[in-house]
Amino acid sequence: MVIGIDMMGGDYAPLEAVKGIKDYFNAVQSPATLLLIGNEEQVNPLLTEHQLTGTPVKVVHAQQVIDMHEHPTKALKEKQQSSIAIGFHLLASGKIDAFISAGNTGAMLVGALFSIKTLEGVIRPTISSIIPKTNGATGLLLDVGLNADCKPEQLNQFATMGSIYAQQILGINSPRVGLLNVGEEEGKGNLLAQATYPLLKENNKINFIGNIEGRDILIDKADVIVCEGFTGNVILKMAESLYDINPQNAAKDPYYSRFNFEIYGGTPVLGVAKPVIIGHGISGAMAFKNMIMVAEKMIRTDVLQQMGEALKG
Amino acid sequence: MVIGIDMMGGDYAPLEAVKGIKDYFNAVQSPATLLLIGNEEQVNPLLTEHQLTGTPVKVVHAQQVIDMHEHPTKALKEKQQSSIAIGFHLLASGKIDAFISAGNTGAMLVGALFSIKTLEGVIRPTISSIIPKTNGATGLLLDVGLNADCKPEQLNQFATMGSIYAQQILGINSPRVGLLNVGEEEGKGNLLAQATYPLLKENNKINFIGNIEGRDILIDKADVIVCEGFTGNVILKMAESLYDINPQNAAKDPYYSRFNFEIYGGTPVLGVAKPVIIGHGISGAMAFKNMIMVAEKMIRTDVLQQMGEALKG
Repeated sequence: MVIGIDMMGGDYAPLEAVKGIKDYFNAVQSPATLLLIGNEEQVNPLLTEHQLTGTPVKVVHAQQVIDMHEHPTKALKEKQQSSIAIGFHLLASGKIDAFISAGNTGAMLVGALFSIKTLEGVIRPTISSIIPKTNGATGLLLDVGLNADCKPEQLNQFATMGSIYAQQILGINSPRVGLLNVGEEEGKGNLLAQATYPLLKENNKINFIGNIEGRDILIDKADVIVCEGFTGNVILKMAESLYDINPQNAAKDPYYSRFNFEIYGGTPVLGVAKPVIIGHGISGAMAFKNMIMVAEKMIRTDVLQQMGEALKG
Repeated sequence: MVIGIDMMGGDYAPLEAVKGIKDYFNAVQSPATLLLIGNEEQVNPLLTEHQLTGTPVKVVHAQQVIDMHEHPTKALKEKQQSSIAIGFHLLASGKIDAFISAGNTGAMLVGALFSIKTLEGVIRPTISSIIPKTNGATGLLLDVGLNADCKPEQLNQFATMGSIYAQQILGINSPRVGLLNVGEEEGKGNLLAQATYPLLKENNKINFIGNIEGRDILIDKADVIVCEGFTGNVILKMAESLYDINPQNAAKDPYYSRFNFEIYGGTPVLGVAKPVIIGHGISGAMAFKNMIMVAEKMIRTDVLQQMGEALKG
């Protein structure tokens, strides 16, 4: 198992990635091999400094970097020697089994959508996010921004993919799937939610429990919450702000502290054939370590292939 | 100035309404006359008990009550002697200048939409909610659920109406209007947000500051945030849950305590010709007092007529 890491992505690159790698090696017994993609002049001294020279890491030199604010498609095309472009080449050609980056989100999404095959039967890949619940549990929300406009069939696929992810990666048995809506009863909602409800009801690959309202997002009512990417993105960013606006308070409160999204690492792209994990720009060591752990689990459980099987039928 | 109050609406009716009325009289110097609509056998003893007999209140007997879970349209039609039906008759015939209820929300909306004239030029009325900001300020979010599917022109009208409300009722000069979206730049968003942006940009009745993201909702970036009612409803209910899920914590934290929506009273319906204010089912005395204060301010400032003027042009 080989996991590729973009060492140049994120606001604290490459130092926090190096620290996260060290934490990862300290945390697991039989670690995966890590391919560190980045400027070797910057990465190598840090590996030495952090005593990572004897570990299963290998540096792949990348002489370019895609900045956080570059135009994704343009940058990926023009910067073929960037760490992100090289990462996707390695992933597409099977030299790595998963690719992680906290760099330019747009470039990561474009790479995932166009360098890696979409799973057969998937209308559009999706991105999800972990939502911490007040009782200590964790749920999954999707889509969180890749698909701002959706068809009912897409939401139905998100439900299936999210359900498999929750089961395999979050370890939730028969995850309860809820449709985000403005009321509890069937028939409520905007046109999209109204048309999606019957599809979810008939979907025998999921445990659909009906509509979920805004007040249910943070409580442990559903394990997987499905919505289009516009609302999902707004909710996610609002939830993240609960931690950001008052970290002092979050530090005192065990619940709000769980809105520190570093705990969960990054956002996996679901619906593509290989694991691609996108981290926050502000990812620190903890986020990098957790992204590696998630990538490892995604490879080990073959979760993406299971999604493909479920959606083919 | 005469304000009508549904004494039978809400989970703690009519006691909390009576307490709220007493608090209102204690708080203001020259109070409005209050028409208390409800079962006089229940209301009168409470008025005596709370020493409200010498105050400018008058009880209008209503022998029926619309329950919280009745079908709105059906109930309003069949229960002509209910406090809500009588309230709307009084409002439509000019016997009261505003109508307040914490009862069946659907019945209140149906009443507002069909008993009271929509202001000329308004495509559809809207409901808004106060959003407390981390710096102590308050903002307005609309629509919060009346219009789950919207056209760009509707969002543009919400912007104008919300802006006038923020100015007249919340006392914010030249309120900054933001379009809720998934990114900051023009061109971002779902089809609705993309089509709405240029309309807001050209709207010379508002101070449009561009897109607002989920992370900006709770901080003081925009005074008025515009979105369709699906997303707005989800956000509002999620914000409310921040108080509900942990009132102990909210009690300790001055910010989260402001998510106690009783502070703001109820939700005014905007776009109709007369003030209709809808309270939460769980409204207590504070909520009733504040709903009366908001109704008074809406009458005094002629805020609805100002909206009509702005949208006629």
